[in-house]
Amino acid sequence: MRLRAIISYDGSGFSGYQVQPNGRTVQEEIETVLTKMHQGVKTRITASGRTDTGVHATGQVIHFDSELSIPPMGWVKGLNAQLPDDIRILQVEQVADDFHARFDVQWKTYRYKWTLEDIPMPFERHMVSYVQGKRPELSRMQEAANHLIGEHDFRSFSATNTSIQDFVRSIYEARLEQHDHQLHLVITGNGFLYNMVRIIAGTLWEIGIGKREPSEMIEIIAAMDRSKAGKTAPPQGLYLEKVGYETL
Amino acid sequence: MRLRAIISYDGSGFSGYQVQPNGRTVQEEIETVLTKMHQGVKTRITASGRTDTGVHATGQVIHFDSELSIPPMGWVKGLNAQLPDDIRILQVEQVADDFHARFDVQWKTYRYKWTLEDIPMPFERHMVSYVQGKRPELSRMQEAANHLIGEHDFRSFSATNTSIQDFVRSIYEARLEQHDHQLHLVITGNGFLYNMVRIIAGTLWEIGIGKREPSEMIEIIAAMDRSKAGKTAPPQGLYLEKVGYETL
Repeated sequence: MRLRAIISYDGSGFSGYQVQPNGRTVQEEIETVLTKMHQGVKTRITASGRTDTGVHATGQVIHFDSELSIPPMGWVKGLNAQLPDDIRILQVEQVADDFHARFDVQWKTYRYKWTLEDIPMPFERHMVSYVQGKRPELSRMQEAANHLIGEHDFRSFSATNTSIQDFVRSIYEARLEQHDHQLHLVITGNGFLYNMVRIIAGTLWEIGIGKREPSEMIEIIAAMDRSKAGKTAPPQGLYLEKVGYETL
Repeated sequence: MRLRAIISYDGSGFSGYQVQPNGRTVQEEIETVLTKMHQGVKTRITASGRTDTGVHATGQVIHFDSELSIPPMGWVKGLNAQLPDDIRILQVEQVADDFHARFDVQWKTYRYKWTLEDIPMPFERHMVSYVQGKRPELSRMQEAANHLIGEHDFRSFSATNTSIQDFVRSIYEARLEQHDHQLHLVITGNGFLYNMVRIIAGTLWEIGIGKREPSEMIEIIAAMDRSKAGKTAPPQGLYLEKVGYETL
């Protein structure tokens, strides 16, 4: 039978999600535990997509197949008991045998967090982005973010070392929120290019501090040129928050 | 001249505050940077008190002496530029030459944090305490905490391996607060015995989940016997929040 799990991880101790020759990865940690639970029979997991080194997840989704008859809460407890404590399984449920965690994605929500403190508290150093200098104006960032909504060719917001051909994505929501001394960007779309949220975040910050105008967002999208957008914001502010499998 | 600094640190990477032969300590990291700033002349710091392994600080206070003529913000920036990022200097100011960070303490405020989530998010594993099982009732804990207020012999809430003689302390405030999915105990007193906040926290939790009655707090204090109180709550939930040098 096929199982779907919602998982959370603190990306600061991982070389990203996906298995690779050097460095600890989320995928490898989970597959190691699952393989042990299946008496050494290699059990693979498939995620909605990868996340980079240092990027966090509060709602990553994976699927895997198993013939073990364990109830959902048994999976949650059994996996969490054996996993390292920077990965937590939040939910497990049985799904249709043809469910696919990556191919069936309808939308994803990411959250990007900045601290607005002048001196960032040490507890947040792996959890939020800290930028020295001027503090941004949320209203300017929101005005710029509104231009992202809709279907656009987002190649201006894509890492250049990518082999993909289709840069068209739909953004459904791009909201700025202030939470005490933090500023959050919550962005939902049908898919995201490599580094897209981090480049959008870096560009919005530059608009927020007055280095660019909110209306420039329209020109940056139209340019279809990575060099027109702002800097790529650092990974520790980024969270994969939710993956949707039903149309919005 | 004498300088007073307010500092914050993430205790999870330290073997406590105080210098010791093995393990990284907050004191040693700061003294190393200060000594470098003083061209190798050993510069010592004195804190309001030590904190244990894993315990955090958002408002620890230290003092040190220096003849360097650096303005307050210069100290803050200079120290932060050289310190590891799990220690941050929040403020530096010149004080009277006879100010003493430990002897002049009038009161301290600690905060103890628990997560109330069933499955703790991985980001909080070093930052809050997580207890499996029943969730507590805040009102029961507050009722019990009210009995702590005033001057009492708190030896029931002191680690037994201590050489001190005087167990009388005054508690000015003991408040339970709910913050989203976290429960906080905020406690202010003129001084705290070794492990006192953690033993109070552990006892309050047991009262919260119904294992003990709120009124038992009176009997536990009166017993003057460590074995009558609850378990010592783990260090990662504890924060030294503020140290006061004026009478409340």
